[in-house]
Amino acid sequence: MENPFFNNNGPFKFRDILKELRIENYQNDQDQNIIDIKDLQNSKSDEITFFHSKKYKTIANNTKASFCITTKNLMNELPKSCIPIIVDNVLLSTSLVTAKFYPDSINDDFDNTVEEINKTKFNDNVVFGKNVLLGKNVSIGSNCKIGHNTIIEKNVMIANNCSIGSNVILRNTLIKNNVRILDNCVIGKHGFGFFPKDNKNLRYPHMGIVLIEDDCEIGCGSTIDRGSMSNTTIGKNTYLDNQIHIAHNVRIGENSIIAGQVGIAGSSIIGNNVKIGGQAGISGHLKIGNNVEIAGGSGVIKDIPDNSKVMGYPAKNIREFLRENR
Amino acid sequence: MENPFFNNNGPFKFRDILKELRIENYQNDQDQNIIDIKDLQNSKSDEITFFHSKKYKTIANNTKASFCITTKNLMNELPKSCIPIIVDNVLLSTSLVTAKFYPDSINDDFDNTVEEINKTKFNDNVVFGKNVLLGKNVSIGSNCKIGHNTIIEKNVMIANNCSIGSNVILRNTLIKNNVRILDNCVIGKHGFGFFPKDNKNLRYPHMGIVLIEDDCEIGCGSTIDRGSMSNTTIGKNTYLDNQIHIAHNVRIGENSIIAGQVGIAGSSIIGNNVKIGGQAGISGHLKIGNNVEIAGGSGVIKDIPDNSKVMGYPAKNIREFLRENR
Amino acid sequence: MENPFFNNNGPFKFRDILKELRIENYQNDQDQNIIDIKDLQNSKSDEITFFHSKKYKTIANNTKASFCITTKNLMNELPKSCIPIIVDNVLLSTSLVTAKFYPDSINDDFDNTVEEINKTKFNDNVVFGKNVLLGKNVSIGSNCKIGHNTIIEKNVMIANNCSIGSNVILRNTLIKNNVRILDNCVIGKHGFGFFPKDNKNLRYPHMGIVLIEDDCEIGCGSTIDRGSMSNTTIGKNTYLDNQIHIAHNVRIGENSIIAGQVGIAGSSIIGNNVKIGGQAGISGHLKIGNNVEIAGGSGVIKDIPDNSKVMGYPAKNIREFLRENR
Repeated sequence: MENPFFNNNGPFKFRDILKELRIENYQNDQDQNIIDIKDLQNSKSDEITFFHSKKYKTIANNTKASFCITTKNLMNELPKSCIPIIVDNVLLSTSLVTAKFYPDSINDDFDNTVEEINKTKFNDNVVFGKNVLLGKNVSIGSNCKIGHNTIIEKNVMIANNCSIGSNVILRNTLIKNNVRILDNCVIGKHGFGFFPKDNKNLRYPHMGIVLIEDDCEIGCGSTIDRGSMSNTTIGKNTYLDNQIHIAHNVRIGENSIIAGQVGIAGSSIIGNNVKIGGQAGISGHLKIGNNVEIAGGSGVIKDIPDNSKVMGYPAKNIREFLRENR
Repeated sequence: MENPFFNNNGPFKFRDILKELRIENYQNDQDQNIIDIKDLQNSKSDEITFFHSKKYKTIANNTKASFCITTKNLMNELPKSCIPIIVDNVLLSTSLVTAKFYPDSINDDFDNTVEEINKTKFNDNVVFGKNVLLGKNVSIGSNCKIGHNTIIEKNVMIANNCSIGSNVILRNTLIKNNVRILDNCVIGKHGFGFFPKDNKNLRYPHMGIVLIEDDCEIGCGSTIDRGSMSNTTIGKNTYLDNQIHIAHNVRIGENSIIAGQVGIAGSSIIGNNVKIGGQAGISGHLKIGNNVEIAGGSGVIKDIPDNSKVMGYPAKNIREFLRENR
Repeated sequence: MENPFFNNNGPFKFRDILKELRIENYQNDQDQNIIDIKDLQNSKSDEITFFHSKKYKTIANNTKASFCITTKNLMNELPKSCIPIIVDNVLLSTSLVTAKFYPDSINDDFDNTVEEINKTKFNDNVVFGKNVLLGKNVSIGSNCKIGHNTIIEKNVMIANNCSIGSNVILRNTLIKNNVRILDNCVIGKHGFGFFPKDNKNLRYPHMGIVLIEDDCEIGCGSTIDRGSMSNTTIGKNTYLDNQIHIAHNVRIGENSIIAGQVGIAGSSIIGNNVKIGGQAGISGHLKIGNNVEIAGGSGVIKDIPDNSKVMGYPAKNIREFLRENR
């Protein structure tokens, strides 16, 4: 995953990682440096990874990571070059370590480092309204417009010919060319992801960003959350109507059309040329194929193959649904 | 249709219209002036209209327009006084010509001509909050209140005794007496209407306005889009709860009550004394009669006659639905 | 009910109350003072109450109120110490009298007494953004953050370690420790409650507040309305995702998790450890037990006992629903 925005706070000594996980009496040398945390496939020497399910056994067998957060049951799948760190809850422990490397990815307090745009270098080449605020690490291309009271917090890149409305809040977002973001959107905050825990839920890090490709339009009052370990993506020339919610890690393809008040739950993947009617909902972790049409109000709870038309709750073939509901 | 807000940029020479449509080698005199674009019924001499479906044959036979965008198949229905302009896609070509006459109706970038209200003539007779912005061609009656950070862009008329909340955005909207618009609403932006086109959708003009009659209340975070060729209308003493979306060209009658998170798709017409429960959705181009009750969560996909009570998805008679779903 | 925020405008002479209700030719002494309005159970001597349904007969028999708004049919249930005031519509008349005692509870115009936070005593001990506004009777604990353009209207208490986002609007709200309110929320406005009346609905008073317990998170663009005669409550460590609507008088328990775009209608009570999937809707006046799971998109129209898992519209046992909808 591209990760242009979140700074790695490492390296940390192995000792510090063990301390973070409250692991004591560990025999190995604890003085080694660990420089980053990545998934099993992408991690390298001197990095730490995690392994929580047999599904990933083959990748685990070949990981290049020097350290791996895992369980007693799974530890023997790791190569000798990889030191296992045994925990009860791999994902929770991974979350703690990720937060240590990328502390900014867990904190979504408002950005109080913003400046008024007329005091920045963008004063001359952006058309902007009253009270526009810009954070650090923001870039804006040519021929862009930014409406009144809009807050562009840190870590936002906007390419050329974009029109951002009023009262918009952006952070951790990469916007390509010719994109229109309408009024009152909130884009790039963390997803609704945490480990439920009585009395005090534990939020996990969101290191992903929101990526909006060329020629998109995002309707008023919509919310698009950034990804946790991957990005939330809106494909080229895809249009979203008002009051839509796109959860973390969702990926939407090109040339898709999504009507008002639709909600797409976390990690679902939507194809190209997809049409989704108003108020439809799509559950998490689903795959919706290309050229799919989902009728307004539908509730989709399983994968939909390419070129299908569905309707209903749970959504099924539209002709079947209409025949049964005459 | 009343059209108080959008300026006609015409007249244009017939030559310019042909050029806009990329029509070459046209034999007729191209030097004539065309002064406006209207529908078949309302257009007059020296104006241009459009004719895209046999449904409108009788009206086409009698149009007074001097020019008509149409197809080869339909052109013979036009009177001799009307010069046909043959195109492949009538609605798309009409959209291009409309945009030429009414360029402001297609551009929804933020209004950067606004001024702070305390620098306008309304400083003395309106109660207003901090950072209130007013555009050109705005009028506000007596005894009105406008909350903090509210942006009234160009083309807004507010009558007497109205209360506008904070963080509200209005444009192209006519508000009658005793109306309350609650916080965070966005009212009067263009509808979600465009011609889908790979790589670059083509937005069509929205020349209609939003008209809110006397004594209405619009709940927090609601969005009401303006019409394309007609107005979006909320009838007298109709109340909308929070987070409602009303799409373009919708017309809602008097004394209706619409609960939270309801969505009404484009061009549907809702009668008087209608009650709609929370989260219900109404598809586009439907007619909902007077005194209709629609249960919360319903999905309405066909017309509903007067005095009916419906529930379900698709919505049907409420007693039947409840019997079947005991 | 705790009522920390709304001021009692009384006492009023009995004469003034009769005048408000347009009751003439009343024989009793009209010079007595009435000091407050309360329900049958809590009202005392020199106070006024209301009695509109036989259901409350036993309580009415024993009320200590000196006056009671009621009907001809019910008046004989009152003790001799209580003077009946006979009306056609008890709730409507009660609403008028309540509004007389608590006029602030019916007026939700924007608060124009706010000041910029840097001119208040909170300048030094709160981290705040640009254009933050504070009303009267606001308290903020230690280690709190308040984002840009946020408006904290009158009658708000925020405890310690809270993070309020940008563009948030709060009023009549009590927020405990470690709470996060994300961007664009509107919390504490009156509920969608009124007496429908042709040509001019009559809004009833909302004297309740919004109470958000420790460790909660409220997602972007959510709306939580304050209660009418009781409070709207979000229990400890309950998390709400984006674009959720919580209506007046709703009570949600502890450790619950509510996904995006859910709506909960007025006066429903949700237990502890409840999970509600995205876009689900819950009708008004229902009781949802502890440890209940409601699948995304469901429409709940009846009470749900403890430890149930439900799905569908109307929501039923999830296994049954899935079997029937294979």
